[in-house]
Amino acid sequence: MAEIIPIHQHKLNFNDAVKNLAELCKEDLHSINTLILEKLDSSVPLIQEIGKYLILSGGKRLRPLITTSCFHLVNKEENKNSHIGLAAAVEFIHAATLLHDDVVDLSKDRRGKLTANEVWGNKTSVLVGDFLFSRSFQLMTKYGTIETLKILSDTSVVISEGEVLEISNDKNLEMNEDTYFQVINGKTASLFSAACQVGGISGGAKESERQALKSFGTNFGMAFQLIDDAIDYSSNSKTMGKNIGDDFKEGKITLPIILAFGRSSKEEKSFLQNVISKPTEDQNNFKLTKELLTKYECIKDTLIRANHFADVAIDSLSIFNDNKYKKALIKLIETSVQRLA
Amino acid sequence: MAEIIPIHQHKLNFNDAVKNLAELCKEDLHSINTLILEKLDSSVPLIQEIGKYLILSGGKRLRPLITTSCFHLVNKEENKNSHIGLAAAVEFIHAATLLHDDVVDLSKDRRGKLTANEVWGNKTSVLVGDFLFSRSFQLMTKYGTIETLKILSDTSVVISEGEVLEISNDKNLEMNEDTYFQVINGKTASLFSAACQVGGISGGAKESERQALKSFGTNFGMAFQLIDDAIDYSSNSKTMGKNIGDDFKEGKITLPIILAFGRSSKEEKSFLQNVISKPTEDQNNFKLTKELLTKYECIKDTLIRANHFADVAIDSLSIFNDNKYKKALIKLIETSVQRLA
Repeated sequence: MAEIIPIHQHKLNFNDAVKNLAELCKEDLHSINTLILEKLDSSVPLIQEIGKYLILSGGKRLRPLITTSCFHLVNKEENKNSHIGLAAAVEFIHAATLLHDDVVDLSKDRRGKLTANEVWGNKTSVLVGDFLFSRSFQLMTKYGTIETLKILSDTSVVISEGEVLEISNDKNLEMNEDTYFQVINGKTASLFSAACQVGGISGGAKESERQALKSFGTNFGMAFQLIDDAIDYSSNSKTMGKNIGDDFKEGKITLPIILAFGRSSKEEKSFLQNVISKPTEDQNNFKLTKELLTKYECIKDTLIRANHFADVAIDSLSIFNDNKYKKALIKLIETSVQRLA
Repeated sequence: MAEIIPIHQHKLNFNDAVKNLAELCKEDLHSINTLILEKLDSSVPLIQEIGKYLILSGGKRLRPLITTSCFHLVNKEENKNSHIGLAAAVEFIHAATLLHDDVVDLSKDRRGKLTANEVWGNKTSVLVGDFLFSRSFQLMTKYGTIETLKILSDTSVVISEGEVLEISNDKNLEMNEDTYFQVINGKTASLFSAACQVGGISGGAKESERQALKSFGTNFGMAFQLIDDAIDYSSNSKTMGKNIGDDFKEGKITLPIILAFGRSSKEEKSFLQNVISKPTEDQNNFKLTKELLTKYECIKDTLIRANHFADVAIDSLSIFNDNKYKKALIKLIETSVQRLA
C-alpha cells in the first residue's frame, strides 16, 4: 500500500486507513462532494448556511466512502454511476440524524465545533434535519432502484426505532445487552450496512454478494460503535478527536456501564445509579466510575465484543476476490478496532 | 347529496362535507385505517403508543380522503389499490410534520388534546416524528412508482423548506406577502397537492389530469390555510375546534397581521411590533389587535385572497366529468372557505 500513502515510522491508524480509502476513491469522492454541495442548494438561505456548516466542515465522509468502495469491490458494470447519488443520499441521512441527535442529547459541541443547535437553536435543527432527510429521499428516488429504495427506507425506520429505544431506556442501568445491541444497530450499524449494500447493488452485486455486504456493514458498524463507546471511558490520548467523558456527563448507558453495573456489588450499584441519574462533570465521580470499569474489566470485554463483530465483518468479505478495495476495507476495520489501543 | 347524509335544516358546513366524502370513500377509508394501524406497529413500545395517540385520535383524515377521492375521480383502472398505501403515506408525512411543528412551536395542545411533546417531551417527539417520516417513505417505496415517489419526496423537501422559511421570518412583520405564500405552500398546500396527484396517478390520470389535480390541491391548500390563519383572529364560535388566538399568543406572522402592519400608522406599527415581539395572553392586546384588523379590513381581505385560491381550485376540476366525487370535492372547498362565515 506504499504507493498510496507513504508509510512513515508509525503504524497505520484509523485516520490513515480512511485517507487511504479516500485516495483510492478520489474521483468518486470528488463527484460525491460536488453533488452534496449542489443538493445543499435551497431558496431558503438558512438551510444552505446550516447545511454547509454541517456537511462541509471536514467530516471524514466515512459512509459515502464505504458506499463507493463497495461499488468498486463488486463492480461488474463499469459505466453506472448511481453509487455517487446513493453515497450522497447516505451522507444526507447521516447528517440529518446528527442534527436531531444533538437536539435530543442537548449536545453543545461535536468534534471541537459548536453544534448547529447551539448556534441556531433546537427548532432550526429539527427542521433543517427534516430538510436533509427529505433531500436524501429525493436523491435515492432519482438515483436508486426499488431495491435500494427499500434498503434505505427500511434503514431509516430502523435508525429512528433505535433512537427511540435508546431514550426509552434513558438511565436504565439494567438495560439488556441485546437491547443495547439493538440500539447501536439502529444508531450506527444499520446505516453502515445500507451504505455497503447500495454501493454493491449499484456495482451489480449478486444476491450472495449483497448478503455479504450487508453482514460486512452491520458487523463493522457494531464494532465501530462499541469502540466509540469504550473510548468515552478511555484515558488514552490516541483516540483522535472524540471528547472523552461525553457519554458519562450525559448519563448515557453504553456497554461498559451495563457490564459494570451487572458485575458490581450492591454499594457499587448504588453509586453507579446515583452518578448516572444525576449526570455531572464531577471529575472524581468519573475517576471512580473508570476504576469500576477497570476492576470489572468492562473496557477489555467491550473490546472483545468489538473484535468479535470486526472478525465477522472481515470474514464476510471472503466471497470477494482480493483487490485493493478489499484490502483497504479490511484495513479500515482493523484500525477502527485499534482506536482503543 | 341527500342520499349520503341527511340534510337537516342547517346549511352544509365543512365538517359535513368531510363526512360526506368519508361516506363516499368508506371502504377505502377502512383499508387506509387498517394499513395505518398495521404500520404503527414497532418493536419499540413507545413508538406504538405515541403513534396511536397521534394518528388514532379522531383526526379527520382529510389528506388520505383527498387522495382516495382523486383516485376515484379519475379512476381508469378499477383494480389497482396503490392509492390505499399512498394515502397512508401521506397521512404519515402529515403526522410527522405535526409532531415536529409542535416541538418547534412549543405547543401544549392541539384541538383540545395535550400535544405529544407535552406528554412525552420534545426529544421523543423529534424521534417519533422521524420514525413516522421514515415509515411514510417505506410505504411509498412499497406502493408507489418512480413518479409518485418523486412527487412525495419533492413535497417533503418543499415542506421542510417552508418550515425553515417560516422560522427564518420569526416575528418579521415586514415579511413579504409572497414569502408568506411560500410558507403556507410548504406548510399546507404542497401536501394537499401531492395527496391529490398521487391519488390521481394511482387511478391512471393522464398528464393533463395530473396537472389539474396538482393545481386543485395546491390552490385548495392555500385557501384552507388562509382561512385557518384568519379564524385565529375571528370572534365567531362556528370555527369548529380551532383555538382562537393561538397564532397571536405565539407571535406568529400570518397574512392578517402582515396586511395590518403594512396598512398601519407609525404608532400602530409600533404597537404591533411590541405585541408580536413579546407574545402574551393579554386579552386587551388581542382585542386591540383585532380592532386594527377590522379597521384595515385585514380579515375581509384574507378571505378575498382565500376565495381567489378556492375559485382556481374549483375551476381546475373542470377537466373531469361530473360525478359524485367531483361534487363532493367542490363542496369540500366551498365549505372550507365558509368556515369563516
